[in-house]
Amino acid sequence: MVKKQDGNEVTVAEVPGYRTAGVSCDIRGRGDGRLDLAVVEAEAGSAWAGVFTRNRLAAAPVERGRRQLAAGGKIRAVVINSGNANACTGEAGERDAEAMATMTAEAMGCAAEEVVVCSTGRIGEPLPMGRIGEGIVAAVRALGKGREPGWRAAQAILTSDTREKLAAERVTVGGREIRIAGMAKGAGMIEPNMATMLAYVVTDAAIGGEDLQMLLQESVRGSFNAITVDGDESTNDTVLLLANGASGVKLAPGGEGWAEFAAAVGRVCGRLARQIVGDGEKISKVVEVQIGGAATEAEAEQAARAIGNSLLVKASWYGNDPNWGRVLDALGYSGAAVEQGSVRMRYAEAGGEAVEVFSRGRVATENRERWREVVAQPEFRIELDLGQGAAEYRLWSTDLTEGYVDFNKSE
Amino acid sequence: MVKKQDGNEVTVAEVPGYRTAGVSCDIRGRGDGRLDLAVVEAEAGSAWAGVFTRNRLAAAPVERGRRQLAAGGKIRAVVINSGNANACTGEAGERDAEAMATMTAEAMGCAAEEVVVCSTGRIGEPLPMGRIGEGIVAAVRALGKGREPGWRAAQAILTSDTREKLAAERVTVGGREIRIAGMAKGAGMIEPNMATMLAYVVTDAAIGGEDLQMLLQESVRGSFNAITVDGDESTNDTVLLLANGASGVKLAPGGEGWAEFAAAVGRVCGRLARQIVGDGEKISKVVEVQIGGAATEAEAEQAARAIGNSLLVKASWYGNDPNWGRVLDALGYSGAAVEQGSVRMRYAEAGGEAVEVFSRGRVATENRERWREVVAQPEFRIELDLGQGAAEYRLWSTDLTEGYVDFNKSE
Repeated sequence: MVKKQDGNEVTVAEVPGYRTAGVSCDIRGRGDGRLDLAVVEAEAGSAWAGVFTRNRLAAAPVERGRRQLAAGGKIRAVVINSGNANACTGEAGERDAEAMATMTAEAMGCAAEEVVVCSTGRIGEPLPMGRIGEGIVAAVRALGKGREPGWRAAQAILTSDTREKLAAERVTVGGREIRIAGMAKGAGMIEPNMATMLAYVVTDAAIGGEDLQMLLQESVRGSFNAITVDGDESTNDTVLLLANGASGVKLAPGGEGWAEFAAAVGRVCGRLARQIVGDGEKISKVVEVQIGGAATEAEAEQAARAIGNSLLVKASWYGNDPNWGRVLDALGYSGAAVEQGSVRMRYAEAGGEAVEVFSRGRVATENRERWREVVAQPEFRIELDLGQGAAEYRLWSTDLTEGYVDFNKSE
Repeated sequence: MVKKQDGNEVTVAEVPGYRTAGVSCDIRGRGDGRLDLAVVEAEAGSAWAGVFTRNRLAAAPVERGRRQLAAGGKIRAVVINSGNANACTGEAGERDAEAMATMTAEAMGCAAEEVVVCSTGRIGEPLPMGRIGEGIVAAVRALGKGREPGWRAAQAILTSDTREKLAAERVTVGGREIRIAGMAKGAGMIEPNMATMLAYVVTDAAIGGEDLQMLLQESVRGSFNAITVDGDESTNDTVLLLANGASGVKLAPGGEGWAEFAAAVGRVCGRLARQIVGDGEKISKVVEVQIGGAATEAEAEQAARAIGNSLLVKASWYGNDPNWGRVLDALGYSGAAVEQGSVRMRYAEAGGEAVEVFSRGRVATENRERWREVVAQPEFRIELDLGQGAAEYRLWSTDLTEGYVDFNKSE
């Protein structure tokens, strides 16, 4: 089911000072041997930053992670299970999240406060703690470096994803090399402001906790928070960034190499986010919604989200139908200031030239055949200039397929 | 394709002082003889009220109607075409809307300012004005009273609807009878704050314009604005209320019969709205989302809309899957204040007793079989008490089917 990537991407376990493992402990109770528990270890401890879902019914491990981040301090490990979200599970869920940390800490010989816990999967079911305990022991025993342990961890965190998601970069600062590598999962309940998604990015740079947190928030904004599959924001979304300092290169905002490093982290987050949207549940198409000329950035974002989450727009993308009227309809109800006489819309193939659709109240019907060619592509772009100001926003969205409905009609 | 109703409902043309017609003028250019142009005439003129879409790219006839309402004065007729929305059509669209009014006025012998114009259908196409002109002449010639002209008008305004939508009431005030009758269309682009929907309610009561406008706004709030099929708000939504005074009964807020009359108008709007949601494109189920215990009414509404528009929730309804976790997930990201320990969720069959699902952080798994029975019904209710205050909101929503996606993947 899960396809291996080409192998061009470096895994988390190939960054100095990190070990990972992915094991099977049958959390779904299907006895199918699927990998479902991962551990990421920073062998000598690591500074970390985290961004969590804004869902008010956040899962127990998310609430625990938020408290842990506020308390400060380094961490030794992250333990992640798929197949069960440990969400809407009341006090029992809180105890289970804590127990996962304790079990991991005992197996590794560190404190429970040094272990971050993440869960993803079905909501409202109790965790099978016996099997999870066995899985944690097995995972800690299996911790290793290099491509294979990295891939196993990347696979163990997946749910309805069809492939693991990896991205990596290298940056050279003062002649010394820094590595950055990340892994993520996505698939359903994917709307910005986090999705049913988890992402872990590690680096061997040495960076202070506050700088790291600021960098992560900035990176998430233009990547994980700028994608949508179905507009559903989950109870468990978490992005962590670990910096263990193993490279010996210290970085700080404004200092040598910071800009290059920050850009590289942004690219890793962007590539992981792009993989999440491209592997959305049963999608057949990825569409970039590019808003320009908005009065404010908030309005540009509203406009992009209204279009990227419109059922009618998404259904027409699935049908290769250049139904620009539905796009303008969604723009009209988005809340963004817009007038018929000043809005301009264009279709463009990925990397290709834009084709006029609508401008100053006139439809460019002479381009109808070109529109059809563009929207028939597996990936294309919609450019909208609202003619109200200079603010911009870019959102990656997908089509809505009959397969999505069929896939999600029951669990 | 369009099924006639049982015949229990009185049509608009059965209210004293109104005549209607529905004719075919092949607006879609398919030569299939489908009724696509309706005229509603108030023979001696009528006070009127109107509520229009808040979409900023509103269609030309909507903009014209808004100006007309602001200018005040009585009207003689409403002319409505289906098959073409006259939206995103620039200045040509404005001229066409005005021309429809002028043609109707000439055929009837009144002023263009006394004619309200409405259009619904495809966005961005020029109106076939030649055929529409012929249709208007034919419709004015065919104007008549009674069931048959009423039904023909109700059918001519439909687009992807599968049946006409009618509702009527009678109220007796001081021994004299007042009639109220309405017709509507819906089907796609249906989200509150108006939908691709048109509704026309007429009465023979005598009511001042301001009172009528207030009454209509209040009635729309709990009816047409409390339904959703796909969350898409259209460019053309319009609800009109005409009061021609033919009964000789004068009504005013606080006076005799007002409360009964207002309640009856509310019921007519409610029944029309319920018919719109029940005839949503390719739906298989209608679900009432009932929020209670919210901190504010705005939050109760946010919560209901987040649930009623969640793709994952709607897909699970389609699959008869009592997936309460997705419902709580949507509640959690709705923006409404809520905590796991205080929220209570129940399922209920229409008119039946409620079954506990989730309460004080505990899932009532012992009721799992009853949940399945309830959500397998073609109509059921979800009750959510947020435990934060006393505010309430009720929304009618539908499931999301593979048929909807297939139907909307191209036009």
